[in-house]
Amino acid sequence: VAINGFIDRSSHSMDKSITLPADEIFRNLENAKRFAIDIGGSLTKLAYYSTVQHKVAKVRSFDHTAKVGVNETEGEPLYEISMQEEVTARLHFIKFENAYIETCLDFIKDHLVNTETKVIKATGGGAHKFKDLIEKKLKLRVDKEDEMTCLIKGCNFVLRNIPHEAFVYVKHADSEFRFQNTHPDIFPYLLINIGSGVSIVKVESEDKFERVGGSSIGGGTFWGLGALLTKTKRFDELLQLASKGQHTSVDMLVKDIYGGSYGSLGLTGDLIASSFGKSATADNEFSKEDMAKSLLHMISNDIGQLACLYARLHNLTRVYFGGFFIRGHPQMYIGEVQALFLRHEGYLGTIGAFLKGAEEDNPNQYSWGENYAGSSGLMSVSPDLNPMQRTRSGTFDMLEMDRLERQLVNLPLLQDPSSYIPDTVDLSEDALAREYWLYCFEEALDGVVKRAVASQPDLPEAAERAEKFRHKYRHKLQTLRQQPL
Amino acid sequence: VAINGFIDRSSHSMDKSITLPADEIFRNLENAKRFAIDIGGSLTKLAYYSTVQHKVAKVRSFDHTAKVGVNETEGEPLYEISMQEEVTARLHFIKFENAYIETCLDFIKDHLVNTETKVIKATGGGAHKFKDLIEKKLKLRVDKEDEMTCLIKGCNFVLRNIPHEAFVYVKHADSEFRFQNTHPDIFPYLLINIGSGVSIVKVESEDKFERVGGSSIGGGTFWGLGALLTKTKRFDELLQLASKGQHTSVDMLVKDIYGGSYGSLGLTGDLIASSFGKSATADNEFSKEDMAKSLLHMISNDIGQLACLYARLHNLTRVYFGGFFIRGHPQMYIGEVQALFLRHEGYLGTIGAFLKGAEEDNPNQYSWGENYAGSSGLMSVSPDLNPMQRTRSGTFDMLEMDRLERQLVNLPLLQDPSSYIPDTVDLSEDALAREYWLYCFEEALDGVVKRAVASQPDLPEAAERAEKFRHKYRHKLQTLRQQPL
Repeated sequence: VAINGFIDRSSHSMDKSITLPADEIFRNLENAKRFAIDIGGSLTKLAYYSTVQHKVAKVRSFDHTAKVGVNETEGEPLYEISMQEEVTARLHFIKFENAYIETCLDFIKDHLVNTETKVIKATGGGAHKFKDLIEKKLKLRVDKEDEMTCLIKGCNFVLRNIPHEAFVYVKHADSEFRFQNTHPDIFPYLLINIGSGVSIVKVESEDKFERVGGSSIGGGTFWGLGALLTKTKRFDELLQLASKGQHTSVDMLVKDIYGGSYGSLGLTGDLIASSFGKSATADNEFSKEDMAKSLLHMISNDIGQLACLYARLHNLTRVYFGGFFIRGHPQMYIGEVQALFLRHEGYLGTIGAFLKGAEEDNPNQYSWGENYAGSSGLMSVSPDLNPMQRTRSGTFDMLEMDRLERQLVNLPLLQDPSSYIPDTVDLSEDALAREYWLYCFEEALDGVVKRAVASQPDLPEAAERAEKFRHKYRHKLQTLRQQPL
Repeated sequence: VAINGFIDRSSHSMDKSITLPADEIFRNLENAKRFAIDIGGSLTKLAYYSTVQHKVAKVRSFDHTAKVGVNETEGEPLYEISMQEEVTARLHFIKFENAYIETCLDFIKDHLVNTETKVIKATGGGAHKFKDLIEKKLKLRVDKEDEMTCLIKGCNFVLRNIPHEAFVYVKHADSEFRFQNTHPDIFPYLLINIGSGVSIVKVESEDKFERVGGSSIGGGTFWGLGALLTKTKRFDELLQLASKGQHTSVDMLVKDIYGGSYGSLGLTGDLIASSFGKSATADNEFSKEDMAKSLLHMISNDIGQLACLYARLHNLTRVYFGGFFIRGHPQMYIGEVQALFLRHEGYLGTIGAFLKGAEEDNPNQYSWGENYAGSSGLMSVSPDLNPMQRTRSGTFDMLEMDRLERQLVNLPLLQDPSSYIPDTVDLSEDALAREYWLYCFEEALDGVVKRAVASQPDLPEAAERAEKFRHKYRHKLQTLRQQPL
């Protein structure tokens, strides 16, 4: 299957010959053990679980607690390292437009082997609509789960288990993203889930939550109105257009009406008085970029205001945003209430549905680590920076999480980790240090590649693999330089 | 000046040769004594005050209170009627798009005679922007008044003084409009003023009010986005398009996602899940009507929700809607809070600015009566019904109010009005009775016209004037039949 074979949305019927970027997207599909699917009004989010075999270095550290003071004895090693094959459980999350669902199901069916699973958990509004199709294609029984229940279950899970899942966006600050540590005490909170429309859910405990409000102005509105205004049919392209636009050419600002600020009311001149207010009477054409930007502002501000009002009405101070909308623009202003964004905003329902199915495994006893190599995370914050990646994620977006059998700890080889005070520097906050270290890593790269090739003199493909590594590593450093957070 | 000479908005420069529908719009301009102007982001509302001379029948009723029991004495008349010339103060309100402001000022300057006024009260955001233009054109000093102050002053005034100013809209009810009587106890209330953008003002007393919120999604957004989507540049034409459209072809409904209702959340299948959600992925073209309708729904629902949330946050139960947006569709859903619409919604700021200037006259001691002949009132509720009137009001809209020197009372010739129990029937509620009476009035019309002509045998133009009367009267009856409320 060709990597660059993308589906052309302008083709009306999507036949099976369309090539999916499958080796990227459906990694390890063959071993898929369990499925969950979340079908929204516009997007489908699929989760599957497979096992991946790989080598890990294991450390056996000898117990010295019983013999304090004698552990410097020569000849008695502090630890032992051994290489082992290990099987890791990996969760794969894939997002695509509903239009691709049939093609994707066909692909899954064709590539699925060895699966013992007979059931697929399904949630989201579309679970009903696509039930028969899924059962027919995959020969799995569709087991529907309540959408809100899955959404909240998934949200609670990422808040508790994924390090730095939630973040605050501080405009114009040196480090715009401020990540929050996981904390067991997550309730109560308000979840604003922005799908095609918006659902506003008050969450008081694991089992107690209520949809307190909603709005029809959501991601589908950005997509739908954006498509009508710009003739651009792809959601991510619309976001990309918006990132280049000037909303002030389309919006009527306070200063356009008042000639400046309206001081006595505390309205600054740059405040938007009327979204699209200028296009009412102006005869000029407006650029796609400007219209997309204005639309994005309009919808974000509206959702932000509703979020703030519902939070105030219900006396909630923590407001999380979920759904597949925020991505490019966490700069939502919601007044005195703290807006918290989620790196995995779009996968909450899928995660919840998956957990529902995996409950017998008691997944909460494991620690979950994000597999950054495959994770989309904040990848799409700046659509311009990684055009190559964008082409892929424009239609398909993915996330991977590894289930860790052990708790991850810092510096496991240390004899007494608690007494060690590391000389740390937060590269996300210290721009000079970041620049220095990225430079160091880049400078060292050639040497590392040379040593890697030299270490495997018997493997003829070593040079080629090392080249691939060099390319990927350099790309990662570039990404970190441009998107340090 | 030709009545039918309307300004073509597609002409880029508007020169003075463009004819305004001036004999309709600028009635009695020559005697204008005082001006006030409210310039919003998109629309200008002008008020002027002039005196109009006309004949009135005055009744002198003799005092019988002192001689109870003897008032049936023959030869002693109960009352005396005399015809008198009277000068009435009349307030004229005119609305037009900001694009016409220069043309209108020129027209006013050319037609203004005998004005003693040196000052024009100005409010609204545009007062600053157009100050120099107004002063140059009219040679009047522009005296700026705070927008919110004028808005609230005008709102308080109409609520206290104009009978049946506020009304509730009850969808699907036999009489959809339920008018409220004036009541001196009007505070507290929430005013949602929908101009180009939306201002939300909490009003606690005559002097105590606060802008508690706002939104950039307002009338300018409907106009601006509507113009971009449909290439229709006129606000009223957009409303007219919307009245013919089906929003369900553009909007994604709950049932489009779920296949039905989402019962456990109390969401009905017909609820809009995502405004414009269908246009995101569908490849078909959407009709202008459907898009306009969807847009109208989107904006109305959004404002309605904000209104409801602010009302709940501030514990207010009465919510009034002002501004020039609601007209075609008072069916705004705002949940548990009572939505009250205002017949003169668009003129609040102008009325307030005018009153500011007229404060020395102490206008509150008068009773104000609406001059229905010239008032737009609810004229534009059903854009389709009166296409002729629509053509006019599409660009210009007007309202007139007469200052009454006396309190208007029912049946002034009655000897003892308090003991008389009239046999009334509310024609707005009783459809059968309405049909009957409208039929009676229509049947009697020929006779009335005949008698009118016969009563003025010496006036050669009597027949022509009677014909005009017949036409106008019949048209009024038709309007009442189609828009009884």
